[in-house]
Amino acid sequence: MVNETQHTCSASSSSRSDGGSSSGSESSKDNSRCSTPVLDADRHERLREKMRRRQDAGDKWFSLEFFPPRTANAAVNLISRFDRMGAGGPLFIDVTWHPAGDPGSDKETSSMIIANTAVNYCGLETILHMTCCHQTKDEITGHLQKAKRLGLKNIMALRGDPVGEEWEEEVDGFNHAVDLVKHIRNEFDDYFDICVAGYPKGHPEAESYEADLRHLKEKVFAGADFVISQLFFRSETFLKFMKDCQAIGIACPIIPGIFPIQGYHSLRQLVKLSKLEVPQEIKDVIEPIKDNDAAIRNYGVELAVSMCRELLDSGMVHGLHFYTLNREVATTEVLKRLGLWNEDPRRPLPWAVSAHPKRRVEDVRPIFWASRPKSYIYRTQEWDDFPNGRWGNSSSPAFGELKDYYLFYLKSKSPREELLKMWGEELTGEESVFEVFTCYITGEPNKNGYKVTCMPWNDDPLATETNLLKDQLEKVNRRGILTINSQPNINGKPSTDPIVGWGPSGGYVFQKAYLEFFTSSEIVTALLKVLKKYELRVNYHIVNVKGQNITNAPDLQPNAVTWGIFPGREIIQPTVVDPVSFLSWKDEAFALWIEQWAKLYEEESPSRMIIQYIHDNYYLVNLVDNDFPLENCLWQVVEDTFELLNSPTPQ
Amino acid sequence: MVNETQHTCSASSSSRSDGGSSSGSESSKDNSRCSTPVLDADRHERLREKMRRRQDAGDKWFSLEFFPPRTANAAVNLISRFDRMGAGGPLFIDVTWHPAGDPGSDKETSSMIIANTAVNYCGLETILHMTCCHQTKDEITGHLQKAKRLGLKNIMALRGDPVGEEWEEEVDGFNHAVDLVKHIRNEFDDYFDICVAGYPKGHPEAESYEADLRHLKEKVFAGADFVISQLFFRSETFLKFMKDCQAIGIACPIIPGIFPIQGYHSLRQLVKLSKLEVPQEIKDVIEPIKDNDAAIRNYGVELAVSMCRELLDSGMVHGLHFYTLNREVATTEVLKRLGLWNEDPRRPLPWAVSAHPKRRVEDVRPIFWASRPKSYIYRTQEWDDFPNGRWGNSSSPAFGELKDYYLFYLKSKSPREELLKMWGEELTGEESVFEVFTCYITGEPNKNGYKVTCMPWNDDPLATETNLLKDQLEKVNRRGILTINSQPNINGKPSTDPIVGWGPSGGYVFQKAYLEFFTSSEIVTALLKVLKKYELRVNYHIVNVKGQNITNAPDLQPNAVTWGIFPGREIIQPTVVDPVSFLSWKDEAFALWIEQWAKLYEEESPSRMIIQYIHDNYYLVNLVDNDFPLENCLWQVVEDTFELLNSPTPQ
Repeated sequence: MVNETQHTCSASSSSRSDGGSSSGSESSKDNSRCSTPVLDADRHERLREKMRRRQDAGDKWFSLEFFPPRTANAAVNLISRFDRMGAGGPLFIDVTWHPAGDPGSDKETSSMIIANTAVNYCGLETILHMTCCHQTKDEITGHLQKAKRLGLKNIMALRGDPVGEEWEEEVDGFNHAVDLVKHIRNEFDDYFDICVAGYPKGHPEAESYEADLRHLKEKVFAGADFVISQLFFRSETFLKFMKDCQAIGIACPIIPGIFPIQGYHSLRQLVKLSKLEVPQEIKDVIEPIKDNDAAIRNYGVELAVSMCRELLDSGMVHGLHFYTLNREVATTEVLKRLGLWNEDPRRPLPWAVSAHPKRRVEDVRPIFWASRPKSYIYRTQEWDDFPNGRWGNSSSPAFGELKDYYLFYLKSKSPREELLKMWGEELTGEESVFEVFTCYITGEPNKNGYKVTCMPWNDDPLATETNLLKDQLEKVNRRGILTINSQPNINGKPSTDPIVGWGPSGGYVFQKAYLEFFTSSEIVTALLKVLKKYELRVNYHIVNVKGQNITNAPDLQPNAVTWGIFPGREIIQPTVVDPVSFLSWKDEAFALWIEQWAKLYEEESPSRMIIQYIHDNYYLVNLVDNDFPLENCLWQVVEDTFELLNSPTPQ
Repeated sequence: MVNETQHTCSASSSSRSDGGSSSGSESSKDNSRCSTPVLDADRHERLREKMRRRQDAGDKWFSLEFFPPRTANAAVNLISRFDRMGAGGPLFIDVTWHPAGDPGSDKETSSMIIANTAVNYCGLETILHMTCCHQTKDEITGHLQKAKRLGLKNIMALRGDPVGEEWEEEVDGFNHAVDLVKHIRNEFDDYFDICVAGYPKGHPEAESYEADLRHLKEKVFAGADFVISQLFFRSETFLKFMKDCQAIGIACPIIPGIFPIQGYHSLRQLVKLSKLEVPQEIKDVIEPIKDNDAAIRNYGVELAVSMCRELLDSGMVHGLHFYTLNREVATTEVLKRLGLWNEDPRRPLPWAVSAHPKRRVEDVRPIFWASRPKSYIYRTQEWDDFPNGRWGNSSSPAFGELKDYYLFYLKSKSPREELLKMWGEELTGEESVFEVFTCYITGEPNKNGYKVTCMPWNDDPLATETNLLKDQLEKVNRRGILTINSQPNINGKPSTDPIVGWGPSGGYVFQKAYLEFFTSSEIVTALLKVLKKYELRVNYHIVNVKGQNITNAPDLQPNAVTWGIFPGREIIQPTVVDPVSFLSWKDEAFALWIEQWAKLYEEESPSRMIIQYIHDNYYLVNLVDNDFPLENCLWQVVEDTFELLNSPTPQ
């Protein structure tokens, strides 16, 4: 996954530079092989191991805290924030537990579901917070079981806030975070990595700072793997706390919680909740500018950067935890200034890997879902086996149905009104559909002056890689070859290539040219004639909504269209054109015409009928040019097709 | 396997040209994927299916009959004849059943073991003959069970010859071939393909030609899949027989048995046994030249070629079966003149595939056994699973021990005296060993005037591919880098390349440069220093006989060193440098010093002690240059090593 690459590479280079130290070591025949080529070691590592490895390698890291949103729309926005901030390379994110928000439920705004989405759909290593007060053992166990089932592997064990003003211990209940830590270890053994909270100034309710340190030690000795600290305002506060912890025998990682001040009110509220006192020197700066949000944020960034530098320079701190308040700008700015933000996110595979433990071995996917990875993950979530390396022995597992196009993590970020502006308030014919596709490709505004920044098959603007094909794509879309997926051929570019590279450095990546589009049956008839000339070179699958399927794929075998050759490893072929899954994709691709586009219009309206007509009559076509070392011939195939159509005797 | 490639390609091209006919056909989601990328369809086909497919494609084919040899030495020679004649591309070979020679036993000269070797070690589709008279049901069933266990899939069901002059039917016994056919179908259902014999002139003991035709029909209707005919001297004889068979409803393939006359005596003997009459026009030619073997053979070739042409031109005959009498020249000559001999044996994989059904899915092997494929097959014969594609999920199965270096199919073709001439009657030091390696590489005679045509690690002269590296190999062997395996880097040559190509046409093959050698610990010390400079580029494994193992391979993963990209298929990576199996290979490679070389000399002799010293003290090294698109750097690595050794301050 994008954000994990930094460690991957450092891991791979560190294990390589370790080569010397392995000199002379014995290796035994009994060493069993890995079950799949390990491209990124940390897909197989637990969070505490990743943390340890980063520390050993002298690699600084950061993590990000979010809270669950209140509304479904806010959830959609938070998920795309996960995608964007995930690109910067956090070691993990964490999602807080809001007892008032039904946190363990299946609601799209629950802590559980947000954490689930972060892990499974955004591929982020995620810690789910969990509080224990006022809950029965069974309730807690139920939450933990559900978390495990969803693929969550890390829990932040907290007490939670008392309901009333005063704290009352419940007999046999969970009264302290340590009770929850013990419970997790009792019931789930070593399955979860457990994080606990530390208070650099002591917990406000603790008898004393020293007593609170002892509580922390109890939590760690009960089985916590690491500590995240409450926010603080001076680096000395944290460094003293850390030394005090170490002095009483707390040896696990302690991660400072960083709170970039982002506004006057949020600061006041947080201070009130955490019962912390803001130092006078900060108050002195803020009070005079309290109505100037930008000024306060600039100051907050400045302050956070210098505090973080002090922490990192101390040599005691290896990772920084950010309280983001679900905002992007300030935290990103601080991370960029610290040089921790991953500016060049290297990809371990060409698609974003899911962090679910079941999917650790997943290293090949059909190309069709390239722009809808969350849908692919959703539809394969019940799989126990993933095609491993070669599509191999897994006898084609069935794809799940995608009936609910409004699952919040699959939902378009754009509301209906915006989509109508982009795709047309009123369509006048198939040509107006061609125009929408063309505008999406070119980035030019449509005739009403709106840019088309998403399509039913792709919620994001054109990928950088696709930009390489822009001119040709524009030409063919204008003429009714409605492209929804494509890649150029690549003949051995370095794996570090900023556009098409992926995987560890020192390797070479390859691609076969690929083009996927909807088009009319008239064009398909001509295309099939043209394809005869390219029979040995071009593989095709042509299918309509009814499932009529025309292909020259030998024995329904998958065709590898992206692969990489790396030092000391087996070949990795992460994307294939797979004839079997294409028929599942076909259902989804055709349904998107109706679900995302036709339904914007009134029933029986001409616009809706135009989309319905295309849905009912067009074909979905994919073409692969097998001769990757030569110039991509797919444009010539399309050119020949139009030529044939325009020739005086079209038979 | 080499000899099967011709059909492979035609199969693949025929299924491709079928692309048109599949247009419009429905393909269903339930179509399960193949368990492994199918490079050659016929690895998954039974013999009768291969025959049918070749016939449908209008492809002519041939097959070869052999008898089991009398002595173990003759068996070694027959096996290398299998390898050579297999290269010409027979559809199958068959091995006759010699009741006098303990045909079902484990003796190296038994019919059973010769057929087993042909299937498993030479990769040839093989029919085992079996006769049934004078044997109990249990004996027969035992033979069939054993044949099945060994991976044999085809039986030629015969009656066998009577013991005395007159034939006596046994009550409840097997009196006719049809009894054996029925027995096989009863006991083994459809497991075996069954072949039966047909007599173009009628069986000599049959009441009449017509009665014999009815017997043949009985055998076919009892479950035989095809018929091979007794020899005959005129094409009209066979064509009439074929029409007569078809007229009474025999619809299966009937293959003419061709007997190229190779000598006066063998002809007379065969005629006597088969009770056939030689036509007068042939006698007229032969009698006058009966003492001139060459003249008779030339005539026999001429005669066979013209008869075969007549048969093929009739349009009724698609395959020709040759009675070789275990000889090579005449049959090969006839086949070459007919254009049936495969002059350019294309390889489906870079190594010879075993024809055992268990090994159908085998598509990757460690490179180490490249020159000892029969040893690899022997040592992995107990495996139920083969690493499939990626070394994958199969947790490293254990390699069988190779204790008996004299298993006849692993034995050197050269006798001890010849080996001594090649490798030295008397060694004077490590340098004389260097010289042997160098002479093997260069092809120049050694100082006693003998060419070194084999080595303990390679029973054949240098491969064409290795010839590409000859100059460099010579240089390094002279200096004590004793190479036993190597391949050049290849960056995308066509799969049809005559030297490095393999797999279906239209693809591209790749290789990483590989070098494997024995060398002294002094050189290893310098080499390890040099390798630090190449740390990111070169992967190495360095091991001595005691198992001390030095490597920079990440996580003991295999490194793919040969792979191919083909139209419409997944990536194939048939050879890897696998760290786990290297330790098994190491045992074998070191043992060969002693078993094949040291033991040529008296115990305690200086020559023997020199080899023993090398065995005890040298290291086995393998190097892979991961940067296959660049110039091979392994020669520079070796150059740098010698430079370091020769530098004034060698530390």
